[in-house]
Amino acid sequence: MAAPRNKRKIFNDPVYGFIGIHNDLLFDIIEHPYFQRLRRIKQLGLTHLVYPGALHTRFHHSMGAMHLMTKALLELQYKGHELSEEEVFGAQAAMLLHDIGHGPYSHALENSMVNGINHENISQLFLSQLNGFFNGELELAIDIFNQNYHKSYLSELCSGQFDMDRLDYLKRDSFFTGVSEGVINYERLLNMINLRDGSLVIEAKGIYSVEKFITARRLMYWQVYLHKTVVAAEFMIMKLLKRAKEIRADDKQLFATPALDFFLRDEVTEEAFTHDPQVLQHFALLDDYDVFTSMKMWCTHPDKVLSKLSASIVNRRLFKVEMQNHPFTEDYLATLHQKTKRTYGISEREASYLCFHDKTTNAAYRAGSHHIKILFKDGSVRDIAEATDELNINLLSKPQTKYFVCYPKDIS
Amino acid sequence: MAAPRNKRKIFNDPVYGFIGIHNDLLFDIIEHPYFQRLRRIKQLGLTHLVYPGALHTRFHHSMGAMHLMTKALLELQYKGHELSEEEVFGAQAAMLLHDIGHGPYSHALENSMVNGINHENISQLFLSQLNGFFNGELELAIDIFNQNYHKSYLSELCSGQFDMDRLDYLKRDSFFTGVSEGVINYERLLNMINLRDGSLVIEAKGIYSVEKFITARRLMYWQVYLHKTVVAAEFMIMKLLKRAKEIRADDKQLFATPALDFFLRDEVTEEAFTHDPQVLQHFALLDDYDVFTSMKMWCTHPDKVLSKLSASIVNRRLFKVEMQNHPFTEDYLATLHQKTKRTYGISEREASYLCFHDKTTNAAYRAGSHHIKILFKDGSVRDIAEATDELNINLLSKPQTKYFVCYPKDIS
Amino acid sequence: MAAPRNKRKIFNDPVYGFIGIHNDLLFDIIEHPYFQRLRRIKQLGLTHLVYPGALHTRFHHSMGAMHLMTKALLELQYKGHELSEEEVFGAQAAMLLHDIGHGPYSHALENSMVNGINHENISQLFLSQLNGFFNGELELAIDIFNQNYHKSYLSELCSGQFDMDRLDYLKRDSFFTGVSEGVINYERLLNMINLRDGSLVIEAKGIYSVEKFITARRLMYWQVYLHKTVVAAEFMIMKLLKRAKEIRADDKQLFATPALDFFLRDEVTEEAFTHDPQVLQHFALLDDYDVFTSMKMWCTHPDKVLSKLSASIVNRRLFKVEMQNHPFTEDYLATLHQKTKRTYGISEREASYLCFHDKTTNAAYRAGSHHIKILFKDGSVRDIAEATDELNINLLSKPQTKYFVCYPKDIS
Amino acid sequence: MAAPRNKRKIFNDPVYGFIGIHNDLLFDIIEHPYFQRLRRIKQLGLTHLVYPGALHTRFHHSMGAMHLMTKALLELQYKGHELSEEEVFGAQAAMLLHDIGHGPYSHALENSMVNGINHENISQLFLSQLNGFFNGELELAIDIFNQNYHKSYLSELCSGQFDMDRLDYLKRDSFFTGVSEGVINYERLLNMINLRDGSLVIEAKGIYSVEKFITARRLMYWQVYLHKTVVAAEFMIMKLLKRAKEIRADDKQLFATPALDFFLRDEVTEEAFTHDPQVLQHFALLDDYDVFTSMKMWCTHPDKVLSKLSASIVNRRLFKVEMQNHPFTEDYLATLHQKTKRTYGISEREASYLCFHDKTTNAAYRAGSHHIKILFKDGSVRDIAEATDELNINLLSKPQTKYFVCYPKDIS
Repeated sequence: MAAPRNKRKIFNDPVYGFIGIHNDLLFDIIEHPYFQRLRRIKQLGLTHLVYPGALHTRFHHSMGAMHLMTKALLELQYKGHELSEEEVFGAQAAMLLHDIGHGPYSHALENSMVNGINHENISQLFLSQLNGFFNGELELAIDIFNQNYHKSYLSELCSGQFDMDRLDYLKRDSFFTGVSEGVINYERLLNMINLRDGSLVIEAKGIYSVEKFITARRLMYWQVYLHKTVVAAEFMIMKLLKRAKEIRADDKQLFATPALDFFLRDEVTEEAFTHDPQVLQHFALLDDYDVFTSMKMWCTHPDKVLSKLSASIVNRRLFKVEMQNHPFTEDYLATLHQKTKRTYGISEREASYLCFHDKTTNAAYRAGSHHIKILFKDGSVRDIAEATDELNINLLSKPQTKYFVCYPKDIS
Repeated sequence: MAAPRNKRKIFNDPVYGFIGIHNDLLFDIIEHPYFQRLRRIKQLGLTHLVYPGALHTRFHHSMGAMHLMTKALLELQYKGHELSEEEVFGAQAAMLLHDIGHGPYSHALENSMVNGINHENISQLFLSQLNGFFNGELELAIDIFNQNYHKSYLSELCSGQFDMDRLDYLKRDSFFTGVSEGVINYERLLNMINLRDGSLVIEAKGIYSVEKFITARRLMYWQVYLHKTVVAAEFMIMKLLKRAKEIRADDKQLFATPALDFFLRDEVTEEAFTHDPQVLQHFALLDDYDVFTSMKMWCTHPDKVLSKLSASIVNRRLFKVEMQNHPFTEDYLATLHQKTKRTYGISEREASYLCFHDKTTNAAYRAGSHHIKILFKDGSVRDIAEATDELNINLLSKPQTKYFVCYPKDIS
Repeated sequence: MAAPRNKRKIFNDPVYGFIGIHNDLLFDIIEHPYFQRLRRIKQLGLTHLVYPGALHTRFHHSMGAMHLMTKALLELQYKGHELSEEEVFGAQAAMLLHDIGHGPYSHALENSMVNGINHENISQLFLSQLNGFFNGELELAIDIFNQNYHKSYLSELCSGQFDMDRLDYLKRDSFFTGVSEGVINYERLLNMINLRDGSLVIEAKGIYSVEKFITARRLMYWQVYLHKTVVAAEFMIMKLLKRAKEIRADDKQLFATPALDFFLRDEVTEEAFTHDPQVLQHFALLDDYDVFTSMKMWCTHPDKVLSKLSASIVNRRLFKVEMQNHPFTEDYLATLHQKTKRTYGISEREASYLCFHDKTTNAAYRAGSHHIKILFKDGSVRDIAEATDELNINLLSKPQTKYFVCYPKDIS
Repeated sequence: MAAPRNKRKIFNDPVYGFIGIHNDLLFDIIEHPYFQRLRRIKQLGLTHLVYPGALHTRFHHSMGAMHLMTKALLELQYKGHELSEEEVFGAQAAMLLHDIGHGPYSHALENSMVNGINHENISQLFLSQLNGFFNGELELAIDIFNQNYHKSYLSELCSGQFDMDRLDYLKRDSFFTGVSEGVINYERLLNMINLRDGSLVIEAKGIYSVEKFITARRLMYWQVYLHKTVVAAEFMIMKLLKRAKEIRADDKQLFATPALDFFLRDEVTEEAFTHDPQVLQHFALLDDYDVFTSMKMWCTHPDKVLSKLSASIVNRRLFKVEMQNHPFTEDYLATLHQKTKRTYGISEREASYLCFHDKTTNAAYRAGSHHIKILFKDGSVRDIAEATDELNINLLSKPQTKYFVCYPKDIS
């Protein structure tokens, strides 16, 4: 592990008390504007409209995940698994930067403006740029991020069924929303990790903590991430951005901050993202402020759809949302659609922005290549789904689908 | 609800902050020596040998359950369900006194000395005595305790699948052991209770909190209540008390405090308990101090079994315990038994006190008459086991059995 | 107290668990865009640059203060002090709206753009408008807010040395920053309040909790509110807004959102604020998004001062700040000033925006008309400053002044 | 620091989550019956009669203090101060064993039965015995305990104005009593420690945390340790033990457990304690169970004083206590005394056991040789009492004396 240097930095964190940075390069990455930008992107988008405390940022989450990575590596070293100073830094940096490619209201953005390219792709582009900036010192971090490093457990700790990303976001989201159902005992979990045949395993005595972790994740999904009002708000902002893009095609005067305008005015392809450095530069300037400020301006735009959606989010007059376990009937959907058209005096096509339906899916645990492995005292290793006969992990693995329909409260 | 009186008492409680007593009679019951005695009986017996913080008493738990009952009744009143001052007091008193019949190391005691009579029976006897003492003012509390009152939900809040007893003990045991897996959001749960057709129901939006409650309970069972070392200690003290009783039959000099000696020297039948007031009087004097002090004295007793068991508990040299999901083979058990005989130079019969096997069973949720009912927005009511398609409550309802064998660590 | 109605709303709050709204009109006020706007104004301005969790809003704080007011009134009612339904609502509404006049980065704004009018004045204007909107139903709330109601303790609970405002913000700021020094036991404090001769008093047994409250406040001042980096950031944004206003006078093209531009382009007098409804309307549209988005645009502005200050805040390259208990020497300040001029090649006047000094003052407790009164068992009432002979409250009352100087890190 | 060995033990602790033991010898000390005995001695004696959660033991506190010592040493090593494996172990063991000489209800015991010898002396004797048992491996620990080791800061961490003992007991007592006034941010404090000229110092940025620590200690004194009912209970048990000793002189039949009887029947001198190994052996068997069980038996003893005091503690009918800042008048005390005599029909001398007065003294901070030193950025070191101009530490240093008188509630 990196020898202590003079420059030790401490970040305040209500979740863990403190997050210490013991490595100068790591600190320099944090100081880079690309990373500072994550201070302006909320971890949970519009969730604060339902859970008012949920204003924490991707910056704070990334710091937290990196903090847990540090603790996990110390635990493994403690248990006799050797790691070089470079490997420790690589894993920390990979964890720190795992979400660097997220934009504001990420899911909505990806489904409206930067089609065909997702945040993982963009993270790659940022990593590559930063690697250049830091003279190739992020090589190993990139390998770990891309699951190309021979110590595959370092990649598993970054991204798997039981990774430091999830561990932090469950804990953090639970803290800031106040939903205690998501509270997990991360200290106990980290005490139980180990390696077997080069893979991450959890010692058998931690089996109940793992179950708790999987259950907590599932409950957080239904109570927070897929809370029907949260889902409605997220789809509303997606519809809104799509509409803005459509309007921008004809109306060059549509207000948008320069960074947002860049993505509204043209179709940005994956090709362009990769080869035109200007695209990433603009993306690096885009944050919650661009989107929300533009929405505030659009509240008075003559387009009924754009202004209705904007004002509804800005003043928190969220649409009504119905959610159920089976699809809605065509009849019911058609009726709502008609009412929306009539109430607002808009076209069929316009109405589809205000009255829409879709589905969401969640599986608390996915068995498969990145399953959680339990190490028993006799040295055997089994998937948690087989190791516990009390909780039906297989059942938790079954994806749950919920159907919803959204529409303005005042249609009649 | 009882009008506020001048005499308001506040008890400090690290779990809820404060527990307020707004009713003079309730306060008088708390002051009675029968109730004060619960200050000297640990809620979790010998669990503190594994979780050193778990020293909290049945006194504190009873106060906590009563506190939650008060909150639950306020919630129901708030939702428009009328309750008289007498009913509120009755439910509070029933909750406060629900564990009054517990003795020290209750499970061990019931299985060694007061055979054929359990703590519920003894609670009845205490309630009856106290009712006399308080001039019949506990009549209604007794009816609620016995499920004889027409507002059956008051009894359900005292004792059911979702009662204030469980709500408090999960929260409290979790707090004092430090096992965060048992943390439950009792405020959210209490916000969601309601009545339907005279029965307690949970409103549908609280369904995930109920699931969390059931899961938390299950995890507390495996991590605390049925922790293999806890189970071993509990069986050791049971064996110890049985042995002491056996020795007492011949050896009148065996030390025991008077209260304990009373139960060691004679077979106490249910008949005697009910009709001979002396029995309950002696029982009312029995607490952890009697048992533990006697054990301390027995550490040097010439009987090898008695002294071995006593010293093992007092100095925390707990026996080895193996626990598994299927029964041990007869061969394996016989071998351990033989080794124990040989190592200690004791008889077959004596060895059975030091080397023993048994099983424990746990179901997180029992479907049936006292099931947890969920109230949906359309007014329908369904058992939680049917209402949630994601968590397999039926699976959680299946009792889990674990088999264990215990023996001294030094046998060879 | 208002009889329970059907429409009960619950807000999630990680600080208190839940905040319940039991009154329809109160809920309607919360839904009003004027109040919803507080969702977009952070309680602690730029403090999150030092404590990354401190992103909570004035919305959440206002809800919390109102929640504590509800609890305080219940306590007083419980102790036999009668309050009508209207009075309860009045006090709740006054508390809920006490910060309605705050703008984004309030202190900076008041000292740069809306000179001569502070947030209390603006709150008055909003209250008056809302009262019109709600058909005069806020009359009593306004009286309480203005300390014109005969039950003066209701005003004391809103604004005094021991009010629900402070109680909430200490607790909340402590929670979100993670600075545990500010943790206060609000339940114990609320349990101890009472009235004497129509004034709010704290019962003597709560004296240590009051001391803790005063000490906690003092520690929060030095560790958070007056943390030198926080102070630096706040003064930087104030200088920045002043500079922007200066530039706007000549440069009509300077980007600013319409709401911000309104206050940049003209001098807004108190007179105008009071009599021109347009002013308040524009103010009601102004929030953190306007200021921050404009700052982001100004990062590339040709004016060296504007762009330097903007980029320093946006990318968190905060200025160096020195803070001490006595004034800096003229010589030292002149040297820093000269270096700033030279390094940036700017004029004397321009340099004063980048290199500046000032002082901050804090007294943990102010004796005087709104002192905290302690009620002793013998019925006597004394000021806390006299009642406690152990803690020198008089000393805490002495204002502490700290002097600071700020300048870019790269001057030489 | 000791290289990790295979045998790593984890203790559950609700205060810190887990306490890890990474050293086999340390674990062996914990397993020794002398140390296990601390499991049966409550940290706060009879305080649980006022704060029902305060049942935690000296075992748990000793473990906690050792845990903080480990963390403190890691911090110092991290800051470049070298420590050998032996020194780390020595400091851990010294901390672990610092309270080994405490008996049950320690203060009462020292003032009634083992006059002239206090718990520090007895700790010495235990340390010496254990050192023999562990083949001299505790030599260094003893030197540190006795402040004889040249790295004096190790002794300061064990026992000083800012030591790991206080840090743990404030945190732990606060947790189990529920008195949040004592909550301290031990992580922040430990982050700030350093060495200067071989002495422990706190870095200046931690000055507010130190103030909080001193204030928290003071508040815990008045709210818990010197709570008037706690003080009353403690003096009652002291009077009770004195009376028992007096009776034992004449009445050989007085019940007492053998360990307690040993100290009741003879005057145990310091001489005897040091030279007669039997004395320490008996002391090592004495715990809360001996005292409380004997008290239970004494409830029916014919001596009015003994039975009254015993029953009052066992059934929690505590005496009335008055406490004030100045001495009580002779007249008032005489009147109470007379009433007690008359009510119980007892002699002057007997009455002095039931009606008694005394005083208690507390200083939150004692300036002097072991003061808390603050290290400033310029390298200077100052006593906290001089370093902070806001809080009057000198005032906190002034001992506060409170006078009290105790007597049965039913005297008339």
